Amino acid sequence: MDDTTREWHLAERPQGEPDSDCFELEEAEVPEPAPGELLVRVNYLSVDPYMRGRMSAGESYAEPWEVGDVLKGGIVGEVVESNSEAYSEGDLVTGEGRWGEYSLLDASEVAPVDPAVADQPAYLGTLGMPGRTAYFGLLEVGEPKPGDTVVVSGAAGAVGSVVGQIAKLNGCRVVGFAGSDEKTDWLTEDLGYDAAINYKTTDDYGEALAEAAPEGVDVYFDNVGGPITDAVFTQLNLDARVAVCGQIAHYNAESVPTGPRKLPQIIAPRAKVQGLLVSDFVTRFGEASEQLGEWVASDELTHRETIVEGLENAPDAFLGLFSGDNIGKQVVQVGDRSA
Amino acid sequence: MDDTTREWHLAERPQGEPDSDCFELEEAEVPEPAPGELLVRVNYLSVDPYMRGRMSAGESYAEPWEVGDVLKGGIVGEVVESNSEAYSEGDLVTGEGRWGEYSLLDASEVAPVDPAVADQPAYLGTLGMPGRTAYFGLLEVGEPKPGDTVVVSGAAGAVGSVVGQIAKLNGCRVVGFAGSDEKTDWLTEDLGYDAAINYKTTDDYGEALAEAAPEGVDVYFDNVGGPITDAVFTQLNLDARVAVCGQIAHYNAESVPTGPRKLPQIIAPRAKVQGLLVSDFVTRFGEASEQLGEWVASDELTHRETIVEGLENAPDAFLGLFSGDNIGKQVVQVGDRSA
Repeated sequence: MDDTTREWHLAERPQGEPDSDCFELEEAEVPEPAPGELLVRVNYLSVDPYMRGRMSAGESYAEPWEVGDVLKGGIVGEVVESNSEAYSEGDLVTGEGRWGEYSLLDASEVAPVDPAVADQPAYLGTLGMPGRTAYFGLLEVGEPKPGDTVVVSGAAGAVGSVVGQIAKLNGCRVVGFAGSDEKTDWLTEDLGYDAAINYKTTDDYGEALAEAAPEGVDVYFDNVGGPITDAVFTQLNLDARVAVCGQIAHYNAESVPTGPRKLPQIIAPRAKVQGLLVSDFVTRFGEASEQLGEWVASDELTHRETIVEGLENAPDAFLGLFSGDNIGKQVVQVGDRSA
Repeated sequence: MDDTTREWHLAERPQGEPDSDCFELEEAEVPEPAPGELLVRVNYLSVDPYMRGRMSAGESYAEPWEVGDVLKGGIVGEVVESNSEAYSEGDLVTGEGRWGEYSLLDASEVAPVDPAVADQPAYLGTLGMPGRTAYFGLLEVGEPKPGDTVVVSGAAGAVGSVVGQIAKLNGCRVVGFAGSDEKTDWLTEDLGYDAAINYKTTDDYGEALAEAAPEGVDVYFDNVGGPITDAVFTQLNLDARVAVCGQIAHYNAESVPTGPRKLPQIIAPRAKVQGLLVSDFVTRFGEASEQLGEWVASDELTHRETIVEGLENAPDAFLGLFSGDNIGKQVVQVGDRSA
């Protein structure tokens, strides 16, 4: 085991789009686990759009990081020293850890990783927080019924790719917006989406949507905001449900973004538009993990990760989320020596 | 009884704000009631903001009027000829009728008016469609809990004035936005609102709201849209509910109105924003009418009408809704010979 670890800190708060000046890689001593703690060697770490909110002061639901703080996120790693009876050296676990080579985790706050179900990176995506977000957001906020048309923005991302597949499992017609032909092909050929629209090569989103969803939109799962969302709101059916999971198009805005007003558009369809945060369902995470694991094990749910190698590339992997570099879940491979 | 009746027709569709060219007063013969019908001499007719939508082609939830069509709305009147056993000559009834001196109504689609409960105009406001809209919109969409802060825009209007009082009856703190000191005084002195903001003399709505609602907004009942709504959305509490009843600020817009994007604002509070149409609750109208009638009879619910005299002034009364001329319900007195 190493004596020192490297980890990413917040060097300065971004104004608008973050750049490399916002991140600083620092060395630290590898710590000793206190009673109940595990020392974990990080194999993979997760970068997620919501982290952009934590980089700004007081602008998000998640507690903001302070300048100088170590960055944190979902990790998968191997227990190298255990001070808990629950886990032993060599066990694979997942939890909330540091953007670093080593992290201390509270044994009560980690979950086991079973390589027989899926490779480690899947535990940061379909079998992790994004998968649970898709599960509860679609089923509890979107309330899909068989025959409904479900539209997903950011459809090839970590959350969207799961949303569409669960909607298909519920008997819905599913239409996705994504940003490349490779992504839209993946949606329709591998994930079972009924139609997919490449928004980067489409001029008129409304026209494309009307063609892909000729019976209108019953459920809209929004990860993105912006002009895609503007188009979807003009085609909501009676009693439509909109789950607002993310608005990545606006996370780097330097002032309050403006756009077409949506409240006048929701009266006629009596649409319900609801903000979504997966932590509200924490008491039911076990249910979601079990169901998602079953679907993955039975190949009813396809998962995919885009893996960037090397801790030093974590900031770039994070920044790539805003240009849509990832297909499926974006993870950073830090130290998986078995892979 | 007269042989002829006068009634208002749609002369042309408005572009943006309607003007008098949109309306034409025409003469017609007073018709005979068919079996099951009543001939009613109109005493009062209702003008309501939603009618603006019916004047445009296919832009609203209510069926658009065609150019040349007679205008219709809520009326209260006296049965002068009955072809139904349910009502007799001299009975007072309310229903959906013509903007005219006489109207044929289907006896199965009218309700009796009881002058012992309230004067006739109240049956077009607190005891009519606006009252039911307030009742179901607040209770079913707003879901107020004791101690909640409820904010109402258009608070001194036909719907808003009822919303705030029902919220007070449910143990809430109630804050209203209205457009004159006379209105805000009425809200706080007669209706029990805890605070009221005159938006025409207030520069910073957000600051005024923060002062009037220091614990944030749990329920927002929106009749208006525009900058008031923009301010409220920045102060939504966790699990806030927004009932979108009307957006009168935008009804005369000639192109899609724009403003601050609200979806990014509802994620952190996980707010639920829902469009509202009273007709969805049609099977429960009896419950609402009974409860509203009890509250009015026991003086727990105050009602007020702004009455314009003369059928010839109906278009002006309607247009006055958009400049906020009315306090409480705007009605037009057509022929109440007892008043």
